[in-house]
Amino acid sequence: MTEIQRNLTVDEQLAILRRGVVDLVSEDDLRRKLTRSLETGTPLRVKLGADPTRPDLHLGHAVILRKMRQFQDLGHRVIMLIGDFTAMIGDPSGKSKTRPPLTLEETRANAQSYLEQCKLILRDDPEVLELRFNGEWLEPMGYADVIRLASRYTVARIMERDDFKKRFEGGVPIAVHELLYPLTQGYDSVALHADIELGGTDQLFNNLVGRALQRDYEQEPQVVMTLPLLVGLDGTEKMSKSLDNYIGLTDEPHAMFAGLMKVPDPLLENYFTLLTDLPEARIQELLAGHPVEAHRVLAREVVRWLHPDADLDAAEARFKAVAKGGIPDDIPSVPVPADLAGGEGRYPVTRLAVLAGLEPSNGAAKKLIQNRGLRLNGDALTDPQAAIELPAEGAVLQKGKDRFVRLVPQG
Amino acid sequence: MTEIQRNLTVDEQLAILRRGVVDLVSEDDLRRKLTRSLETGTPLRVKLGADPTRPDLHLGHAVILRKMRQFQDLGHRVIMLIGDFTAMIGDPSGKSKTRPPLTLEETRANAQSYLEQCKLILRDDPEVLELRFNGEWLEPMGYADVIRLASRYTVARIMERDDFKKRFEGGVPIAVHELLYPLTQGYDSVALHADIELGGTDQLFNNLVGRALQRDYEQEPQVVMTLPLLVGLDGTEKMSKSLDNYIGLTDEPHAMFAGLMKVPDPLLENYFTLLTDLPEARIQELLAGHPVEAHRVLAREVVRWLHPDADLDAAEARFKAVAKGGIPDDIPSVPVPADLAGGEGRYPVTRLAVLAGLEPSNGAAKKLIQNRGLRLNGDALTDPQAAIELPAEGAVLQKGKDRFVRLVPQG
Repeated sequence: MTEIQRNLTVDEQLAILRRGVVDLVSEDDLRRKLTRSLETGTPLRVKLGADPTRPDLHLGHAVILRKMRQFQDLGHRVIMLIGDFTAMIGDPSGKSKTRPPLTLEETRANAQSYLEQCKLILRDDPEVLELRFNGEWLEPMGYADVIRLASRYTVARIMERDDFKKRFEGGVPIAVHELLYPLTQGYDSVALHADIELGGTDQLFNNLVGRALQRDYEQEPQVVMTLPLLVGLDGTEKMSKSLDNYIGLTDEPHAMFAGLMKVPDPLLENYFTLLTDLPEARIQELLAGHPVEAHRVLAREVVRWLHPDADLDAAEARFKAVAKGGIPDDIPSVPVPADLAGGEGRYPVTRLAVLAGLEPSNGAAKKLIQNRGLRLNGDALTDPQAAIELPAEGAVLQKGKDRFVRLVPQG
Repeated sequence: MTEIQRNLTVDEQLAILRRGVVDLVSEDDLRRKLTRSLETGTPLRVKLGADPTRPDLHLGHAVILRKMRQFQDLGHRVIMLIGDFTAMIGDPSGKSKTRPPLTLEETRANAQSYLEQCKLILRDDPEVLELRFNGEWLEPMGYADVIRLASRYTVARIMERDDFKKRFEGGVPIAVHELLYPLTQGYDSVALHADIELGGTDQLFNNLVGRALQRDYEQEPQVVMTLPLLVGLDGTEKMSKSLDNYIGLTDEPHAMFAGLMKVPDPLLENYFTLLTDLPEARIQELLAGHPVEAHRVLAREVVRWLHPDADLDAAEARFKAVAKGGIPDDIPSVPVPADLAGGEGRYPVTRLAVLAGLEPSNGAAKKLIQNRGLRLNGDALTDPQAAIELPAEGAVLQKGKDRFVRLVPQG
């Protein structure tokens, strides 16, 4: 049995847990729950809903997982809730691209991948890490149960949600089932007897529905805690894979290092607060100093956190070499089958880029070249139709500043 | 196998079916369906949703049932759909008095009573009368099925419904499950493969949802036909039991006759159109003549329709006697147990009124007396606390103009 952390007072715990938090509904409730937990030795149940349709995690997710880890370190139990059942339904209207229906296999595979990435940050101990799937309670629900659940909440309150309000007022269709999803998500908290639910600020509304429903089901309402959506490397949009402004949670040390060195200056404080434990005074000292030094400290802190075994000096050295436009030594080598070549023994560059794993398709590779994002031996390619010769020692394809692959002809 | 009526052309059938109709969406569709039915000999499926929470039918219901009967007479099949499953759920929020949840037994008993009354108007032949319960397809539905159904319709379209719109704009709470009920009702049409759905004008929206859903489920959309809500004897509100402005479908001939003689003059044309087959020219002739004569014809037509075996002259004679303030001869007699009497052998009038079946409770009887609605041997009672002596031959209690009970002391 994991022990509740007794070396810290409730106020000291609150100070840790409040760091970086945007919404806390309510601090009094959290204080009460922490106090009772200390008195009774019963861990709190901290819920995080995971979306199994998007299994690739990045530093934006790390912000929340870091908070979950803080709860674990205080002896509490975190619950990763996989919305498997809802993911399998997806958006039956087919209108929302954000909710493609998944098969059971996809859902399970994504959940597994999600969980593996979470374990880079969370403590992997069944005493403080619980994995649940919402199919457990949604699958047995019938029509009458859905009606009863839906009767607990009013249309007006659901329509208060920002995106619903805007769509309704703007005449953008909202299908009726979309109103049921926040209720379902809220019901998950009832089923889990959650004490606390974490989420991004975009989840505030949904998580407050859970708080209201719990009260309606005569449970103690959960504390809702939101964390900022981390702004990505472009400095304007929230970090996301589709905007390509992200640093992946599983990126290699040197790539992660390079990414963090590119964080726009105005975001530095935010990154320090949300992704490191550096004390406030130290952060201010760094921000007052030279930005490159501040970036270096940030990069080393975050890489050390997510890659505890990595050689930080090597990662930094490699970043520096690449930054100067050099090609690093230790890059992966990919053999190129002879039959990839066209008539005159020349290889189409788009096919090479796909083979190298730099792009998923010829079309994407073509686009990359049009955007001047692909280099051959250091020189930007300009013609998507180009076909090149490959010398026996190979040639280096480079995507952006930091991804290199050596292509070596076979045979 | 019942035959489709072939003596009438489609235009002649349309003329019959259009009488009294308010909304017809669309006449073209109806014409097409009637034509095809004539060609193929396949009867149309005509749906009417019945609300098993209100099993007492009156002339307001007769308007729609009469239209159903016209479809039967043309060889089509009418389907009485009992919303048993939804009635059992009722309004789980408990906020709507119009949807008290019923037990299975209540639902079945109400449905039975509903059906018996319908058979006063409909042809009771399994070839043209089908009874269905929506639990048949709602009971097996799971959460995923409900989500899929709900995804077929947008919030904006549901909120177009007049009462929802007013409530939403007026800040009167609408629970989310209320949005699901029109969808459920619409899905009933899908499950039944309805060709036509009948209803009052207040059902236009719900029945159009059925039309839209059928299209979405790749069925031919049903024709929606609405009939007016009959205005009651007060001349302003729609006929309803709770407003006590109604004529019951099972009222005795003389009572029905008396009720029809009280129809406000401005409503006469409406009643003639909706409740009789008199040709338009005849109706206009009657309306141009003396109102009492027009009322007599209306009363005789409707009583003959609903009580084909009744003695119309006797019903009229009795109405006349009562109208002059007399007490008719053939009134029911109720024995009064001796122990109903108080200390001095006198009987409290409120308890007598309840015993006589004139009111459901002492409180209601008290109110009736306060409103000067209860007479004893022709004289209005004024004191709700009064207790009276009962001679051996009994005394006559009278509620309103037309309900008499003779109370005879026992032993």
